[in-house]
Amino acid sequence: MKYFTTAYDTPDVLQLIQDAISLKENPNKFSEIGKNLTLGLVFMNPSLRTRLSTQKASQLLGMNSLLVNTSTDGWTLEFGDSPMNGTTVEHIKEAAGVMGEYCDIIGVRSFPGLTDREKDEREEILLQWMKHSGKPILSLESATRHPLQSLSDMMTIIENSKKKKPKVVLTWAPHVKAVPHAVANSFSEWMKFMDAEFVIACPDEVRLNEEYTTHATITNKQDEALEGADFVYVKSWAEWNNYGKYFSSNENWLLNQKKLSLTNDAKIMHCLPVRRDVEIQSEILESKNSLVMQQAGNRVYAAQTVLKKMIESNYPNHSEKITSKQFQNIKS
Amino acid sequence: MKYFTTAYDTPDVLQLIQDAISLKENPNKFSEIGKNLTLGLVFMNPSLRTRLSTQKASQLLGMNSLLVNTSTDGWTLEFGDSPMNGTTVEHIKEAAGVMGEYCDIIGVRSFPGLTDREKDEREEILLQWMKHSGKPILSLESATRHPLQSLSDMMTIIENSKKKKPKVVLTWAPHVKAVPHAVANSFSEWMKFMDAEFVIACPDEVRLNEEYTTHATITNKQDEALEGADFVYVKSWAEWNNYGKYFSSNENWLLNQKKLSLTNDAKIMHCLPVRRDVEIQSEILESKNSLVMQQAGNRVYAAQTVLKKMIESNYPNHSEKITSKQFQNIKS
Amino acid sequence: MKYFTTAYDTPDVLQLIQDAISLKENPNKFSEIGKNLTLGLVFMNPSLRTRLSTQKASQLLGMNSLLVNTSTDGWTLEFGDSPMNGTTVEHIKEAAGVMGEYCDIIGVRSFPGLTDREKDEREEILLQWMKHSGKPILSLESATRHPLQSLSDMMTIIENSKKKKPKVVLTWAPHVKAVPHAVANSFSEWMKFMDAEFVIACPDEVRLNEEYTTHATITNKQDEALEGADFVYVKSWAEWNNYGKYFSSNENWLLNQKKLSLTNDAKIMHCLPVRRDVEIQSEILESKNSLVMQQAGNRVYAAQTVLKKMIESNYPNHSEKITSKQFQNIKS
Repeated sequence: MKYFTTAYDTPDVLQLIQDAISLKENPNKFSEIGKNLTLGLVFMNPSLRTRLSTQKASQLLGMNSLLVNTSTDGWTLEFGDSPMNGTTVEHIKEAAGVMGEYCDIIGVRSFPGLTDREKDEREEILLQWMKHSGKPILSLESATRHPLQSLSDMMTIIENSKKKKPKVVLTWAPHVKAVPHAVANSFSEWMKFMDAEFVIACPDEVRLNEEYTTHATITNKQDEALEGADFVYVKSWAEWNNYGKYFSSNENWLLNQKKLSLTNDAKIMHCLPVRRDVEIQSEILESKNSLVMQQAGNRVYAAQTVLKKMIESNYPNHSEKITSKQFQNIKS
Repeated sequence: MKYFTTAYDTPDVLQLIQDAISLKENPNKFSEIGKNLTLGLVFMNPSLRTRLSTQKASQLLGMNSLLVNTSTDGWTLEFGDSPMNGTTVEHIKEAAGVMGEYCDIIGVRSFPGLTDREKDEREEILLQWMKHSGKPILSLESATRHPLQSLSDMMTIIENSKKKKPKVVLTWAPHVKAVPHAVANSFSEWMKFMDAEFVIACPDEVRLNEEYTTHATITNKQDEALEGADFVYVKSWAEWNNYGKYFSSNENWLLNQKKLSLTNDAKIMHCLPVRRDVEIQSEILESKNSLVMQQAGNRVYAAQTVLKKMIESNYPNHSEKITSKQFQNIKS
Repeated sequence: MKYFTTAYDTPDVLQLIQDAISLKENPNKFSEIGKNLTLGLVFMNPSLRTRLSTQKASQLLGMNSLLVNTSTDGWTLEFGDSPMNGTTVEHIKEAAGVMGEYCDIIGVRSFPGLTDREKDEREEILLQWMKHSGKPILSLESATRHPLQSLSDMMTIIENSKKKKPKVVLTWAPHVKAVPHAVANSFSEWMKFMDAEFVIACPDEVRLNEEYTTHATITNKQDEALEGADFVYVKSWAEWNNYGKYFSSNENWLLNQKKLSLTNDAKIMHCLPVRRDVEIQSEILESKNSLVMQQAGNRVYAAQTVLKKMIESNYPNHSEKITSKQFQNIKS
């Protein structure tokens, strides 16, 4: 696994989810596997949950980490052509190359511009990091996907499912501004591998890219979708056809108690941060139905599992060396 | 000790001070006690000394740490009611809950607004972190108190005292703006437990909240107060009755050589940062009378001692597990 | 080696370079030498490569680190006289003193103001850190020099040299603004110790301070200088006589393929970040002639070698204590 940017980067999605659930039982078990390895964390957009959970995952594996926030660190990167006589101070070719010199694995967070659909879908930023760093790349959310969030979401569904084939509903939510599709795309992508009835409820104006939703039942009738649901994932996203536009939110799509009552006492999911009483009613977030804290907590084990696999596949002899070195220390 | 926010959170203040002085003798002795534990450090206001000393304390105990500066990290938290259709991106309920998922102990720095006295004294921010994180909370200075600074100050007094019962004077100082009461409140609170003659000298306009000063002699005559003093703690603070107002400073309150000569060759203390020649004369800061560097240095051992106690009381089996695991590593 | 700020701080420059090249072979060999020691990293100006490589170096040596970015951390320091009734919040005397309390070695990055030549050349900021911290100081680039960059550059030349006495050309390059002399000064200073033919090519307007260039052949004819060159170091810098002025760049000084063809298939060097097609033609940077990535990578081993020597000379018993402590752990 040189890259982890989509569900398709792992040969067995269900196994990966299961591995993450297992690792959670004993997260300190592999505290030496990352020793002497360095994880670079490059945030080209703000992040908190992702940064904290990935830093913690690296600490649990004994890895060192080097953190860069391109905005606050004043590292304005050039992705285009030369001559560089403007305000950008370094080209991605050098920036990624240098990070490749210092790091064994590089995590990258980049957002879509939400103005040029083709550009966002080409995932230019992520691809340039892959191309120019020469090192394994871990997506910390990209223009179109957020795979560590989805791995965490799948863990949470399996941990809470009482049925062999639960009904899972992804329902669009109002927001105060246009927000990226990455979480919704990715959730849909990963749901392809799950044994579930998967329904997406959203206004027609905010239909997702069909590439991610071929296996889903799509409806603009939220109430019908919610009927009998076991899990309801609430998330806002911008328009996709009329790309990046803010769909003036209709408060009818707010997930409230009345709507929850239509479900099979559904568990409520959200990737956070959540706009209380805009996306979901506050009392639901604080009820026993809410899984949002468990989802956030699982982010640590999702990141840890993926990092562990990236270490094992890209630095196969590393953990053996670590072990033999330990012996050496004891003998000497 | 689930919380450390005031002197009253520890069952034996003098013992805690003594423990900190002892730990300073061998700060590397407990380098395994925090292994596999994570300290969250949330700064809702800027900090340097506190961040650096607490980070170092966590490193000395082998803890991992996760740092958040809410302002530079762009994490604008909501503490009030919904709907969240404004500029705040996450409610404290989720923010604290998520930090609780990632951290075993959480240190929080928050400042008073200095406009609404009742609100500041309710310590709303600190209380919300306690309530919603579900984890032990360490105050890194709150609206009304700065207990790690005070622990460090008490260490410094004991380390330098030549008498059984020294005279300790807290004297108000001029500044260029209204600054919080936390250090002065806290210093007064901790002085209750010390065997000392405690005097507070300040203009009537800046009398402190009496809750903290019942055991002190309070005077507006600085010269009289300084007579025979063994320790002089210099600090500015805003008005409390006319809450949060800047008391136009009177240079007569500047601690200078002439005033120092009234004392018993007193040791001079300040929590730093200090406005040279506004609060204290420069040459005093650079003289042998100054304890300000020792106070700052003691911050490490104050934080380390408190963190150690919080680990021992909240994760009682943790250090045993660490030890048995070490044996296991050696055997395997 | 209490201070590392110039080539003259090490008794044997060539040995230091050789040590760095050797350490690169096995960078994990000394992973315990810095245990329980704390490296402070104070950036008074932005840095990425230097921060990342020095953080990594400290991790490779097992040191803890404490990072301060004075600008984003809001630590506006006073270097001048009192009274401090302005916007600066702490005097360098206290700031450095406190960092000295918390750190065993302090790395400092400071830039020239590029307006007052005498002031910049006095290296006031660096000197005040030396004077008031009481601890070993490592320059992470100062007003006039960048010794870790130069150590890395020398390593790179030796690693790539096919001759006993190569021809090394430092050639001025256009830029979009006036940039510091530190890299060029320092490169020249370190070249004094190398067995090489050293030529500096630059327009007369941007001649460097002669203090650094007595051993160099200086010419304003770039083409002649490049003839037969084995290494070409490309770098822009501001005017020195007309101090700090931006020399309107002449595109004729851009290092392009045509100019490269004049050389002995020279290796091309640059400290990065580089303005592509302003300083160097893009295709050269991506060609086999480019050493820029190797230079950046060597920064880690340069910093690691210097930190190791600073530990050994300033904390001579430290590594022995570490070793005996390890035994103790195993026995207990």
